[in-house]
Amino acid sequence: MSISEAIENTRQAIEADPANAAVTLRVNGENVSPTEFAARAGRHRVTIDQPGPLGGDDKGAGPTEYALLALASCQAVITSFWAAKLGIELEGLEVSVEGDLDVRGFLGFDDSVRPGFSDIRVEIAPRGPETADRYQELAEAVDAHCPVLDLFTNGTQVSTRLAVPTA
Amino acid sequence: MSISEAIENTRQAIEADPANAAVTLRVNGENVSPTEFAARAGRHRVTIDQPGPLGGDDKGAGPTEYALLALASCQAVITSFWAAKLGIELEGLEVSVEGDLDVRGFLGFDDSVRPGFSDIRVEIAPRGPETADRYQELAEAVDAHCPVLDLFTNGTQVSTRLAVPTA
Repeated sequence: MSISEAIENTRQAIEADPANAAVTLRVNGENVSPTEFAARAGRHRVTIDQPGPLGGDDKGAGPTEYALLALASCQAVITSFWAAKLGIELEGLEVSVEGDLDVRGFLGFDDSVRPGFSDIRVEIAPRGPETADRYQELAEAVDAHCPVLDLFTNGTQVSTRLAVPTA
Repeated sequence: MSISEAIENTRQAIEADPANAAVTLRVNGENVSPTEFAARAGRHRVTIDQPGPLGGDDKGAGPTEYALLALASCQAVITSFWAAKLGIELEGLEVSVEGDLDVRGFLGFDDSVRPGFSDIRVEIAPRGPETADRYQELAEAVDAHCPVLDLFTNGTQVSTRLAVPTA
């Protein structure tokens, strides 16, 4: 199924029942070592770990790298969706993301330093026959509609709950 | 190397040269189909895709699922770090994360709907011999120091740049 068909099918499903617009995504996992986390998202398995200097075995990318990968891939797929919506031809797309972090924050060495990224930079490189203006129009539509960009730039409500510990 | 040794080594490296506290993480990738993104984070390869109803081949979890996995795994490893720092024994840890999303936002069906998550819920289940109060103390330290929780709950500066399109 093409992206245009998927968008149209989704539109019709929501028109038939607006409740179809609301989705709840669920992921879970457990520590298999102090640094290695074995995660599941549906049928997919993902290994997250820390590099050696942070006490890990580097069996997978780290949590903050996965956060940047989520942003890069979200920019990419939302570019495909909006290229289809706007009738802009797109033959290929590369995305690079970098983020600055001060490790004194999460390690508790300096509580005036935020634990997360201080700055994140995204570069999008489209390939195709359209004018630079059309790709600029596309990039603006993407930035207005990218879920992970919204998650990172605008505060999102997150609640954490501690389950009863088991011995 | 244990986590306690890694924290102490990092502390000493920063004491020797404060510039060692600043890291820049880099990831990149490209579309191999309109929905599939082949990503790299250091030596690690990650496949991100969309499920069938959104036009993909479900070759990997989706971008918003990776965002939730980043949060789950970050909570897990920061729990290990802070258990070591606070001398709290931790034998195991499970983390579940769920997030609510309204697809009308990112698909542009209703621009009053935000593209990202409206609500995210995390549950942490520790296993070990300590009292519930000690695990509560640990959970509070984690929430104050988790980079991805900070990224999601507090706005972070993200800039996007469009490279010159190539034909």
